[in-house]
Amino acid sequence: MVQGAANWNTGMTQEWLQEYVDDWVSFYRKHTAEGEVASYIPALKEANQDHLGISIIGMHGMKIRSGDVDVRFTIQSISKVLSFIVACMQRGVSYMLDKVDVEPTGEAFNSIMHLEMKPLKKPFNPLVNAGAITVSSMLDGETSEEKLQPLLSLLEEIIGHRPPINLEVYESERESSMRNRAIGYYLLETGFLDSDIEVTLDTYFKQCSIEVTIDDLARIGLILANDGKDPDSDQEIIPRQVARLAKALMLTCGMYDASGKFAAYVGIPAKSGVSGGIIAVSPPRVRNEPLPFMDGCGMAVYGPALDSKGNSTAGIRLLRHIATQWDLSIF
Amino acid sequence: MVQGAANWNTGMTQEWLQEYVDDWVSFYRKHTAEGEVASYIPALKEANQDHLGISIIGMHGMKIRSGDVDVRFTIQSISKVLSFIVACMQRGVSYMLDKVDVEPTGEAFNSIMHLEMKPLKKPFNPLVNAGAITVSSMLDGETSEEKLQPLLSLLEEIIGHRPPINLEVYESERESSMRNRAIGYYLLETGFLDSDIEVTLDTYFKQCSIEVTIDDLARIGLILANDGKDPDSDQEIIPRQVARLAKALMLTCGMYDASGKFAAYVGIPAKSGVSGGIIAVSPPRVRNEPLPFMDGCGMAVYGPALDSKGNSTAGIRLLRHIATQWDLSIF
Amino acid sequence: MVQGAANWNTGMTQEWLQEYVDDWVSFYRKHTAEGEVASYIPALKEANQDHLGISIIGMHGMKIRSGDVDVRFTIQSISKVLSFIVACMQRGVSYMLDKVDVEPTGEAFNSIMHLEMKPLKKPFNPLVNAGAITVSSMLDGETSEEKLQPLLSLLEEIIGHRPPINLEVYESERESSMRNRAIGYYLLETGFLDSDIEVTLDTYFKQCSIEVTIDDLARIGLILANDGKDPDSDQEIIPRQVARLAKALMLTCGMYDASGKFAAYVGIPAKSGVSGGIIAVSPPRVRNEPLPFMDGCGMAVYGPALDSKGNSTAGIRLLRHIATQWDLSIF
Amino acid sequence: MVQGAANWNTGMTQEWLQEYVDDWVSFYRKHTAEGEVASYIPALKEANQDHLGISIIGMHGMKIRSGDVDVRFTIQSISKVLSFIVACMQRGVSYMLDKVDVEPTGEAFNSIMHLEMKPLKKPFNPLVNAGAITVSSMLDGETSEEKLQPLLSLLEEIIGHRPPINLEVYESERESSMRNRAIGYYLLETGFLDSDIEVTLDTYFKQCSIEVTIDDLARIGLILANDGKDPDSDQEIIPRQVARLAKALMLTCGMYDASGKFAAYVGIPAKSGVSGGIIAVSPPRVRNEPLPFMDGCGMAVYGPALDSKGNSTAGIRLLRHIATQWDLSIF
Repeated sequence: MVQGAANWNTGMTQEWLQEYVDDWVSFYRKHTAEGEVASYIPALKEANQDHLGISIIGMHGMKIRSGDVDVRFTIQSISKVLSFIVACMQRGVSYMLDKVDVEPTGEAFNSIMHLEMKPLKKPFNPLVNAGAITVSSMLDGETSEEKLQPLLSLLEEIIGHRPPINLEVYESERESSMRNRAIGYYLLETGFLDSDIEVTLDTYFKQCSIEVTIDDLARIGLILANDGKDPDSDQEIIPRQVARLAKALMLTCGMYDASGKFAAYVGIPAKSGVSGGIIAVSPPRVRNEPLPFMDGCGMAVYGPALDSKGNSTAGIRLLRHIATQWDLSIF
Repeated sequence: MVQGAANWNTGMTQEWLQEYVDDWVSFYRKHTAEGEVASYIPALKEANQDHLGISIIGMHGMKIRSGDVDVRFTIQSISKVLSFIVACMQRGVSYMLDKVDVEPTGEAFNSIMHLEMKPLKKPFNPLVNAGAITVSSMLDGETSEEKLQPLLSLLEEIIGHRPPINLEVYESERESSMRNRAIGYYLLETGFLDSDIEVTLDTYFKQCSIEVTIDDLARIGLILANDGKDPDSDQEIIPRQVARLAKALMLTCGMYDASGKFAAYVGIPAKSGVSGGIIAVSPPRVRNEPLPFMDGCGMAVYGPALDSKGNSTAGIRLLRHIATQWDLSIF
Repeated sequence: MVQGAANWNTGMTQEWLQEYVDDWVSFYRKHTAEGEVASYIPALKEANQDHLGISIIGMHGMKIRSGDVDVRFTIQSISKVLSFIVACMQRGVSYMLDKVDVEPTGEAFNSIMHLEMKPLKKPFNPLVNAGAITVSSMLDGETSEEKLQPLLSLLEEIIGHRPPINLEVYESERESSMRNRAIGYYLLETGFLDSDIEVTLDTYFKQCSIEVTIDDLARIGLILANDGKDPDSDQEIIPRQVARLAKALMLTCGMYDASGKFAAYVGIPAKSGVSGGIIAVSPPRVRNEPLPFMDGCGMAVYGPALDSKGNSTAGIRLLRHIATQWDLSIF
Repeated sequence: MVQGAANWNTGMTQEWLQEYVDDWVSFYRKHTAEGEVASYIPALKEANQDHLGISIIGMHGMKIRSGDVDVRFTIQSISKVLSFIVACMQRGVSYMLDKVDVEPTGEAFNSIMHLEMKPLKKPFNPLVNAGAITVSSMLDGETSEEKLQPLLSLLEEIIGHRPPINLEVYESERESSMRNRAIGYYLLETGFLDSDIEVTLDTYFKQCSIEVTIDDLARIGLILANDGKDPDSDQEIIPRQVARLAKALMLTCGMYDASGKFAAYVGIPAKSGVSGGIIAVSPPRVRNEPLPFMDGCGMAVYGPALDSKGNSTAGIRLLRHIATQWDLSIF
């Protein structure tokens, strides 16, 4: 492995960075053996456990891509950030924060227990299943198609094409995710749902089944790094306040019940999904010496072998290494 | 109230900022009426519910002080950040993270329940009581005096004098805080304590009783904002890695079970104490237009009237207003 | 109120007992004002809050009936005892005890939390909703009609006619009981259900909607008091081991999270339902002096005004008074 | 093993019963290998894992003793029944039930969690540690000696001599039982303790260290079976209401979180302790055919090898076998 003690001051060309990242991807790929591919739905089980890829997109067109960059995978829980953003754009931040809390939970992502334990029974945050299902219920529209329309349009605006919904995964989720159905009915009974339960669950299962690549996610990360503006066109795609809120939420709650550790060790807003993707956001930072992507960048990794918390084993390690080498932490 | 739409570009003198902050302190002081002074120990009950003060110290000597700046108060839970820093300096970061988790809990600061619910029974993080008591047990030394020596020296190095321990508060804590004693014995039984239980509790009660002013806390905040270095002497007081870790921890867990909301609305690392103090850290930031304290600053507020979570009602609002006006969020 | 210090030794005729019981019903009726009629489904809300009635049937034909004895009401949770009995008859006691625990929970009847907290996630007992839904899934048959057939036949054998299912209540339950649906899907996911989820829930909602009178319930109680045999025909209707098990379960878990208090204050196996019915079983007992119904009896009260635990306020008090006066406790 | 299908009708002499019980003790002794001797305090660890003994005392002097009957062991949690009885005699039943609930908990005996989860934070019942410590605080007296005086006198009255306190075990408990200390301080903070915390804990540790034999316990069981009266002298030793309440409590909460299963499978009031003792109470019962000890009896087993719930593995099986053979169940 190329040692990290590079002098970034001079000659830090895209080629050099590419070489480093290629090296790191090779090195961390072995950690894919430590995790397990998600098995709760058949479609996820077919993922290639050895895969590891990363895409980094900077402010001024600099791109680093390495490893298995072309795999298409379903976005899964990463969609929770996007549906929350869309709901905030439709309903306003105050309305949303009234309905869903933004506190880290300390519990597993699919916990029902914590709903029952808290007097208010309000979902802890939009990035656990209970909160995300509540958010899906708040999207405008009567059908899941109507509800997802603005989310898909937002994605199209960012990544340049309308991403497909993987119907096989969607069917699979719909038929197998009984825990989510349990959560949905629980929320229905406690009065948190704004829409029909079946439409809500359908929306949730569909949004999880949107198919993306790490290039797509890195580009979304770039927009968030730039506070919602497209750095090329300078156009606002997500309102600044919403983009900021999304990043705060990702930092405190984005990596399931390992969010605290990710904040401590990596220190950048991120959100992972059970298919093995992680989106990460590096905002512009102030340092005494030049470092790669100091103007900010969007990053995404794909590595379907997961640890016990549900995060990509190799992906987390790769991001941690890069964050340390390039001093990406926001703290 | 002076409106926030100031043009910071030119003529942003210390006097102007002072005027704004004075204004905001007056405005938010009325929110002291909404909270209640902590009553669980007699000494805290005597605090003046109307008090509100703020101190801000920037990188190059700029200082803003407003409101009730001269009140001396006990540091309480803010000491948890300091003892964690000292323990990391003594034992190393890896050792500490092995013994105490760094996950937000979603539970109240004095919860025993979450220890019992989790298979490992490992304290969630160093900023809840269970974690902080564990940290106190890890400080070097056989007696509470020995254990606190390095912490007090660190403070002396930062604030220029050795802060006193308020003996009345200490006695009061020691005699009344039965919940902490329960937590201590629980930890003893599960094997997390590295020192004698009574020495550990004594250390914990004493560190909570260290007397400070908001100027002291703001100066500590400044050192953290500058990644552990004193900006005047450029000397490292806290190792960079430890300072970074402390800030990550403050952001995810610093404001009790309102940490997520504070991250979302204010967006800077902070830690509050039950006596009404809050320390907050604004690291250097990148913006397109000049803004106050862009090189970073330490901040502290004092407002003993607390909300139901244990945070200063007026203090939180004042910090939120300033963070919004000056765009301090790290996200 | 007629004082209880009667000399039971001589002349303890049915007329005398009737007079006492009438008196006690009048006296305790005022406690109906302290409770509230269940409101979670419209059909239950229409019950008359003032109603209070009791039926007692002894071994040799002695019957005491007093108050509002002719009201027809849905059996609700009392059906949980019956479906458990039928499932034990079909599958055997060992199979059942393997799938559902028989431990009191300390939690509310409709808790999901306790499923998640326990490593095995096995329903605590057949008399909380999670356990009862599991039991319904184990009844033989592919449809809810097939599943309920043996239960209705058992009832017919005991009470002499096939009880109707109140379709209005059934529809109402099916449409409004989202918590039960949540529990059902949770159980489905953890693998405890033996049948299709919708068939299981349908069975559960239907069995809760069986319409009975207190005479019917008292007669069921009599069979249980007689260890499963009809005292008139001496024919075994429920196997002795199953009847015994049902009584043990009723004593430890029958009165929701007030079961311990009911055991302490009243001391006989009982099961209540949210419509206001309570079935109670007084097995034969040994005393030094003659007392009413010493050979055992079945009892049932109806009083739809419920306390916060879900038990009939006046009904519980009336049973407690009778149990004390006649020394019914099994302890 | 002698088969259980004995004809009890004729010739059921003490010798015959003795032979059966000897046989059963031999048979069930092998189950001692499945458990483990309690190890949390050194003194308990020294118990002989292979030991198994039983003592049964009937109403009219009939005694069956078999196996390791002469081992002296500390009474441990069985003392919780006795201190509750004494506290009821001193304070009255209503006062006690106001301070401590009588609900089964579903939680382990040393749980703190359930205190925190319930709004009232009232100890669930006098037979879990939290409840028992609360009860110890309510015993009359300023010192642990004064508090234990009436309990020891009651024991003396029942068993004919004043039982010793095993000082080694007491010291050991006092020094090692940090969880109980944690519970004690927790209760102190929530205001449930009536006495000084150290006196309370001292009382609790001492009462657990009272040394008994199974003959002693069987005799206590006999008094409870006879509703508090000594069957020889016909004198009331424990008020009838208190004896009844104690039996109800033992049935619903006496066997830790296996109480429900014990009620279902064995069906008699019992209380176990971590040293391997179990006291069991068989009240008089009505049956169609003569059965041993139909007038009631007290029973006690000793078998220090414990299962995961803290109950004697062999002891529970032996009691279950006897209860089945002799049809002891109160249901």
